[in-house]
Amino acid sequence: MEKIRVAVAGATGYGGVEAVRLLAHHPQVELSFLGSETYQGQRLDEVYPHLQGLPNRLEPFEPDEAARRADAIFLAVHAGHSMKLAPRLLEAGKKVIDFSPDFRLKDVKVYEQYYKVSHASPGLVEEAVYGLPELHREELRGARLAAVPGCYPAGALLAIAPLLRSRAVKSDGIVIDSKSGVSGAGRTSVSLEYHFPELNEDMWAYQVANHRHRPEIEQELSAVAGKEVVVSFTPHVVPVTRGILTTVYAHLAREASSQELASILRDAYEGEPFLRVFDESRLPRVKPTSGSNFCHLAVRADERAGRAIVLSAIDNLGKGLAGTAVQCLNIMFGLPETMGLEHPGIYP
Amino acid sequence: MEKIRVAVAGATGYGGVEAVRLLAHHPQVELSFLGSETYQGQRLDEVYPHLQGLPNRLEPFEPDEAARRADAIFLAVHAGHSMKLAPRLLEAGKKVIDFSPDFRLKDVKVYEQYYKVSHASPGLVEEAVYGLPELHREELRGARLAAVPGCYPAGALLAIAPLLRSRAVKSDGIVIDSKSGVSGAGRTSVSLEYHFPELNEDMWAYQVANHRHRPEIEQELSAVAGKEVVVSFTPHVVPVTRGILTTVYAHLAREASSQELASILRDAYEGEPFLRVFDESRLPRVKPTSGSNFCHLAVRADERAGRAIVLSAIDNLGKGLAGTAVQCLNIMFGLPETMGLEHPGIYP
Amino acid sequence: MEKIRVAVAGATGYGGVEAVRLLAHHPQVELSFLGSETYQGQRLDEVYPHLQGLPNRLEPFEPDEAARRADAIFLAVHAGHSMKLAPRLLEAGKKVIDFSPDFRLKDVKVYEQYYKVSHASPGLVEEAVYGLPELHREELRGARLAAVPGCYPAGALLAIAPLLRSRAVKSDGIVIDSKSGVSGAGRTSVSLEYHFPELNEDMWAYQVANHRHRPEIEQELSAVAGKEVVVSFTPHVVPVTRGILTTVYAHLAREASSQELASILRDAYEGEPFLRVFDESRLPRVKPTSGSNFCHLAVRADERAGRAIVLSAIDNLGKGLAGTAVQCLNIMFGLPETMGLEHPGIYP
Amino acid sequence: MEKIRVAVAGATGYGGVEAVRLLAHHPQVELSFLGSETYQGQRLDEVYPHLQGLPNRLEPFEPDEAARRADAIFLAVHAGHSMKLAPRLLEAGKKVIDFSPDFRLKDVKVYEQYYKVSHASPGLVEEAVYGLPELHREELRGARLAAVPGCYPAGALLAIAPLLRSRAVKSDGIVIDSKSGVSGAGRTSVSLEYHFPELNEDMWAYQVANHRHRPEIEQELSAVAGKEVVVSFTPHVVPVTRGILTTVYAHLAREASSQELASILRDAYEGEPFLRVFDESRLPRVKPTSGSNFCHLAVRADERAGRAIVLSAIDNLGKGLAGTAVQCLNIMFGLPETMGLEHPGIYP
Repeated sequence: MEKIRVAVAGATGYGGVEAVRLLAHHPQVELSFLGSETYQGQRLDEVYPHLQGLPNRLEPFEPDEAARRADAIFLAVHAGHSMKLAPRLLEAGKKVIDFSPDFRLKDVKVYEQYYKVSHASPGLVEEAVYGLPELHREELRGARLAAVPGCYPAGALLAIAPLLRSRAVKSDGIVIDSKSGVSGAGRTSVSLEYHFPELNEDMWAYQVANHRHRPEIEQELSAVAGKEVVVSFTPHVVPVTRGILTTVYAHLAREASSQELASILRDAYEGEPFLRVFDESRLPRVKPTSGSNFCHLAVRADERAGRAIVLSAIDNLGKGLAGTAVQCLNIMFGLPETMGLEHPGIYP
Repeated sequence: MEKIRVAVAGATGYGGVEAVRLLAHHPQVELSFLGSETYQGQRLDEVYPHLQGLPNRLEPFEPDEAARRADAIFLAVHAGHSMKLAPRLLEAGKKVIDFSPDFRLKDVKVYEQYYKVSHASPGLVEEAVYGLPELHREELRGARLAAVPGCYPAGALLAIAPLLRSRAVKSDGIVIDSKSGVSGAGRTSVSLEYHFPELNEDMWAYQVANHRHRPEIEQELSAVAGKEVVVSFTPHVVPVTRGILTTVYAHLAREASSQELASILRDAYEGEPFLRVFDESRLPRVKPTSGSNFCHLAVRADERAGRAIVLSAIDNLGKGLAGTAVQCLNIMFGLPETMGLEHPGIYP
Repeated sequence: MEKIRVAVAGATGYGGVEAVRLLAHHPQVELSFLGSETYQGQRLDEVYPHLQGLPNRLEPFEPDEAARRADAIFLAVHAGHSMKLAPRLLEAGKKVIDFSPDFRLKDVKVYEQYYKVSHASPGLVEEAVYGLPELHREELRGARLAAVPGCYPAGALLAIAPLLRSRAVKSDGIVIDSKSGVSGAGRTSVSLEYHFPELNEDMWAYQVANHRHRPEIEQELSAVAGKEVVVSFTPHVVPVTRGILTTVYAHLAREASSQELASILRDAYEGEPFLRVFDESRLPRVKPTSGSNFCHLAVRADERAGRAIVLSAIDNLGKGLAGTAVQCLNIMFGLPETMGLEHPGIYP
Repeated sequence: MEKIRVAVAGATGYGGVEAVRLLAHHPQVELSFLGSETYQGQRLDEVYPHLQGLPNRLEPFEPDEAARRADAIFLAVHAGHSMKLAPRLLEAGKKVIDFSPDFRLKDVKVYEQYYKVSHASPGLVEEAVYGLPELHREELRGARLAAVPGCYPAGALLAIAPLLRSRAVKSDGIVIDSKSGVSGAGRTSVSLEYHFPELNEDMWAYQVANHRHRPEIEQELSAVAGKEVVVSFTPHVVPVTRGILTTVYAHLAREASSQELASILRDAYEGEPFLRVFDESRLPRVKPTSGSNFCHLAVRADERAGRAIVLSAIDNLGKGLAGTAVQCLNIMFGLPETMGLEHPGIYP
């Protein structure tokens, strides 16, 4: 079988370079175009010395050229860019896997309100598939355009969707408290708040009650619940490089033990190659997921308060971004879903 | 005025040595007895080279001897020890400031259930004052025995008590999500999970839904609310040495803006020397509280979800333990409340 | 071609589990025996949740059984153990790749002096090949027993051997200053000094002037120089998990620019798959080598002082241990030297 | 006694704010002017929430105004600024304590070569006293202008000066290898290399063989040795916020044991309030010096190599900058040298 030629726009951002790392050793992929505005003309292994022996020249991303040289394009770019790039790539018959939020929200008005930009391609929004295979695998199979979930939604949705779908928890009153590593802020976010002496030994919440990932979570949970779901969502930064730990609180719809709740998760994720539900004896930690596409889960019944408390751990650049993107690629091209994603992360 | 002679039992634990650090430069305190089982016979500055020029010899803590040489005794010991030491110290007419949980819970049965030990001094439980000055200042003035709050309850109570007391939030449905530095686990907790290569770059939740600090939080919030309060409480470990960031979610009893909620906090803490309520422009971070007795607070209205989200940042060894203990000492001995606690923490 | 069956003794130590991680995806290796005293009977993915889908049962390491089930045995054990296990494995016709120091030092007396133990297999010492391919590739080809270098010697030897061999620097007056991540201390080294709140934000030197890796460095440098080399060597611990940065100071034998010195390194390592010599524009950092078998190098002429200053960065568990071990395996079995080692590390 | 009014230019840099923290609780100091270009008009506790209740308004630093309102001026500014500000302040009869390198180097040509700027006040260079009290206490007593040492020279000089002065080590062949926390780079150094996801878990050397602190070290060691001293000096960055660990290698002039070498250090520093020489049983760590003005030292004889290896640990913002500056102030104004510096750092 011929290899899939893949172009990456934004190859030197943290999400982009993680995709490059994964794709470089994907047995059915040939990296054919590495786009980077910032480092154009430089060699990739100069910018990222951990990568060696790859197609090295970084070029300004040019969609027509990318369409010529690639079968699939990873758009690892910021909000507002994908909606301009995607149409030409799709018209050229290419598949697009988008890291930006441009095609995640089905309600264009909500997108425009949260991202403060007019949508340039509202007509593509409906077609785009929200690229979380555990929720939308079937739609992804034939998709031309996958909108890879935000890192926080990935962790939150994987934690609570099965309990919500099974009606084990109520759809109102959900609280999502997430703790993220700093790479989630990206490489271009260099600023005083992420200056090592400031952030090391510190942590904080940010964008309390109005983070951009909230409507994305609500959209997907509403679809799962079959009615409008409103959540409280608070993201926090902690001094680790990779990883999101999410703690979800939801009211139990009926009495249930921790074991019963775990069974629901386990049943929901049976056969899922990257989901692992822990039993009573352990709780998820982010570090064992680092560098991988795995999501580790556990759930506890808080009997006094009548709540389920679900914990999920992912690598925000793995299952939270580039890993899921590669998983989408595999599905969209009919490859085994785990291809190129089997390698474990690094520990310790 | 003559100095208060203070003995510290458990002076080489993290809580004890932080108390020693503060007391050593307290203008009205003379450190007269440093108790340590582990390091008896050694010099304090050998065990802790950051401390110099202090009464150096570490001795096994002996209550009668401590009573002879001290006016006040800090019991920086584990659960189950204070309840045996406190009676003799009180009988000798001394004041006791207890870091252990032994006298925090008014319901001895709850204590015994959570701490798996029979209470040896149930008769003292009622007399003991829960040592959070912001909630119990008047009772502390005449107190013989102060039970310094647990580090998580300190951060959580300071965050939510004013909103609950003012009926701005409902008493049911409160969720408390706390993120703690590792020093909270103590110095004697050396184990694989806190081994640097394991914990660095990791984070996790633990004792989900059944942490020992939950009943303490519920006891105090119930007193504030005037009715039984049940909370969901999840503690997390993050790779910082000091600091607890607490995120509290509570249902608004009526519509309220972030500013209105902040006003309630600000009014409640007017005149409090160690509480600082931030306005709209900033959110608390733990590092600026490090080494200090300060608590930084902010609140946001989550209008879509009808919730208040309150954030508090403290140093778990400062306002979360030794700082509050010194504040209790000052109150119990009629000293200015800030004495010995004015020095700022260290930043960056 | 049939796969090489590999057994790992000490599979749950940090060195062992890194070997397992690499071997698990080595195309010509079948992991056939995972030995662990501490965790025998448990599943590997319970002890190390980052590893999935591997031969999961951990067994007590039994050499006869290992010899039956494996073609090669990785002995990821402490000093004093390999010298007892290796003879039986070699007698059974197996190849042994030893992580311990037991067969590194050709002078048994020096070994016994530094490791405080009588050598149980002095007869094998001469046969054992010091397993640094860049110095001993040819001998490794036919070897039955490879003694993988210590992590510090790996970094130090790769830095200075070419300059010494080429006589660009003098053989006396060499100073080696190494900074190591904490994983080098191992997983069983849990103790107060590596307790997160103690080590985080700290660093220190240890075993100044008498570290066990010093004779190993001197043995190999003496062989390179053709005369006895004595070095000053100081190891330091810094709060990172992986990585050794080594700074080597050597007197220039004749005037030489940084470029000339770099050329010597570059010529020496031409064709070496894992060695990368930086030019004037950059210096090595440990993080880009993390999880890989790469060594990054740079050299500067200190003209005022008449010295060469060479910097090397490796992952102490990669090129400093398990990576080099796999490279030895490849050489000993006639496989392409990079097999199973091509995957880059993770960054950031 | 009337308080000394002190102005701080550059009060919001890391060095400046550490000086403010120390001066704010100095019993004989009144902070009378806080200069900050970046944050002028803001309150200090908004920029640095760890500081409370201080003269809060930040103003652009204006030397005439500062001269009117202050008796002493701390110039916590970058190279090239102090040489323009100092003359007017000195003419106004004020004492100047300079954090910049402008007056450290007695050879103006060397200064200009290393700092790439013409010296605007070469006439003041001779008068300026190199502000390391342990080397220049007597000259500081009457000084108008103290040039506080660079952070690396402070740690290096305190380590090796006594052995050099006593002729226990030779003056040639000295190697200085320093490992620094990131705060040494300053607050305005925000850039990709100090971005948390880049630096965390990494370390590197920089400005190998040509760092600006090298001539400063050589100048002072030459004065101590009575002849020209040339050193090799390599600074490294490690992921801690505060602290410099320096390892100095020097050839023994005659055989000497570790104890004998330690005695020389101990004798040299007898009576020094901030120097502590460890015995055989321990080695310096940076964390116990954090936030303090202490320097911890140890020395080992490397008998095989004929070297002394000296280790020193300081807080780069404490003894390495602001602490020493306050010590200079005390000496210059005839106050007890430890005033305002007695408080220990924070640990853990």
